Amino acid sequence: MDILVSEVGPRDGLQSLKRIMPTADKQRWIAALAAAGLREIEVGSFVSQRALPQMADCAEVVAEALTIPGLRVAVLVPNLKYAELAFQAGVHLISIPVSVSEPHSVSNIRKTHAEIIADVRAIVALRNASYPSIKVEAGLSTAFGCTIQGPVSEDDTLRMAVTMAECGVDTVNLADTVGYANPVQVRRLFTRLRQVIGEKSGGAHLHDTRGLGLANVVAALEAGVTTFDSSLGGLGGCPYAPGASGNIVTEDLVFLLESTGLATGVDFMRLLEARAVLAAALPGETLHGHIAQAGLPKGFAFSAGRRAA
Amino acid sequence: MDILVSEVGPRDGLQSLKRIMPTADKQRWIAALAAAGLREIEVGSFVSQRALPQMADCAEVVAEALTIPGLRVAVLVPNLKYAELAFQAGVHLISIPVSVSEPHSVSNIRKTHAEIIADVRAIVALRNASYPSIKVEAGLSTAFGCTIQGPVSEDDTLRMAVTMAECGVDTVNLADTVGYANPVQVRRLFTRLRQVIGEKSGGAHLHDTRGLGLANVVAALEAGVTTFDSSLGGLGGCPYAPGASGNIVTEDLVFLLESTGLATGVDFMRLLEARAVLAAALPGETLHGHIAQAGLPKGFAFSAGRRAA
Repeated sequence: MDILVSEVGPRDGLQSLKRIMPTADKQRWIAALAAAGLREIEVGSFVSQRALPQMADCAEVVAEALTIPGLRVAVLVPNLKYAELAFQAGVHLISIPVSVSEPHSVSNIRKTHAEIIADVRAIVALRNASYPSIKVEAGLSTAFGCTIQGPVSEDDTLRMAVTMAECGVDTVNLADTVGYANPVQVRRLFTRLRQVIGEKSGGAHLHDTRGLGLANVVAALEAGVTTFDSSLGGLGGCPYAPGASGNIVTEDLVFLLESTGLATGVDFMRLLEARAVLAAALPGETLHGHIAQAGLPKGFAFSAGRRAA
Repeated sequence: MDILVSEVGPRDGLQSLKRIMPTADKQRWIAALAAAGLREIEVGSFVSQRALPQMADCAEVVAEALTIPGLRVAVLVPNLKYAELAFQAGVHLISIPVSVSEPHSVSNIRKTHAEIIADVRAIVALRNASYPSIKVEAGLSTAFGCTIQGPVSEDDTLRMAVTMAECGVDTVNLADTVGYANPVQVRRLFTRLRQVIGEKSGGAHLHDTRGLGLANVVAALEAGVTTFDSSLGGLGGCPYAPGASGNIVTEDLVFLLESTGLATGVDFMRLLEARAVLAAALPGETLHGHIAQAGLPKGFAFSAGRRAA
């Protein structure tokens, strides 16, 4: 496998829907994603049930996901209290959102930079003391720009990445939370990220809000990024742009990667089956994506040598 | 201006719609496009009125477009007879579609390679003899793959490009007619195109049928391409994928280019006005594109130094 496609739909997608997906539907969907060959899934977040009732069953979803052989189970956590719940649940990876834009941080999780940095330190200390096999990732939100602050300087993003590395997280990923990134910026910032934090340099979490999602993937690939977050059917609308897509679409991402000869380990036909499972669980919801609609090119060859009809 | 955005909506977009746009609406739309700073527009095709009644008023549309100062007026022509009409109409540029895939050529314009090559020679001879200031372009359809033939070899595409250059056309552009191209292929093929035909190497005509349109633009930019065809609102559905978009979206292309610091000469707000003119002329038609829906990033700076709100 050349590239890890990290599916975030059950967390990032579902949290932006008004409706609450029943636990059994989540489990069926996650099983279908894993069956399609996705090896890492962010299955939910441990977070206030009042703030995000869609995630209230996270422990149950995690428990079921942990029974799937070979699946790396990830969750998002906003602070030490919920990190501890995630550790106790036995996840493989926790991701902590850290906004490079301080106004966004205050607005989103009501924390200043100093507060979230202290949180990350405490989470890493707990992990080191009691859960040494669990990985901790810092996800730098608004790394490419912010709807509140406007432009975000690359130096600010890199400074926060270095701070996170110094806090002891295992990886730092860069998130284009609001779909502001462009390919030149993506290529440069991931290149610089590797220069300053080396092997702790993590994946890309890109949005397609302004249509540049896959263009930014091309740029990130050139900068050596090997992990990409995406969401089946592009689930996860951007709250600032009703109807616009948010996360890049897993199906289209896999097509892009495989078409350029990069192996993803994903079975495309089974991925379409997972899309059908998702569609059945969310009647009336718009699923995004081009390749599911247009179909594979005639004679298309997957990296594994399989051929489309 | 770093990059020429060549608008093809009035030709490639309208020819795929069932309805026929009234001449006055076409003229209003073309005027709005030119007012937005687009410097080259393919305003129609001279072609059998029975085959494409949408293009029956091409001479009238050309005549009006030629009155717009600074606008390069382009048309598509399928053969010598219609090329002569285009020359007589006084266009600045004609584009001749030449399929690299011979089965596609036979199916699309009922001509073998030998026949279309003879046509191109005759068209160039007529241009050289009587209309020396008019440019002739060969647009290589199915240059990246074909829905009939399947994969198309890069060597075949390059051979046809060399043949066209030898026929005396001014530029050869490469068209991903059916949306099969991927970024690695696009980068390699445009790089090789420049190696074999040098300054006759032309622009990219990319489709977004499978979601890779702007990703392919990034790759083409890296290969030195400076002219891109696109269509306002992505007008021009792909007949093989109902509902899927065809041409890359002019608004999104301009946003991509300007966001990476490449000047297009396009006034974005006026481009949105042109989109409104188009929408008014095509009630009920779906216009594609992300940026028109999501809006520009806060504090976005255009290459010309203008800033978004």
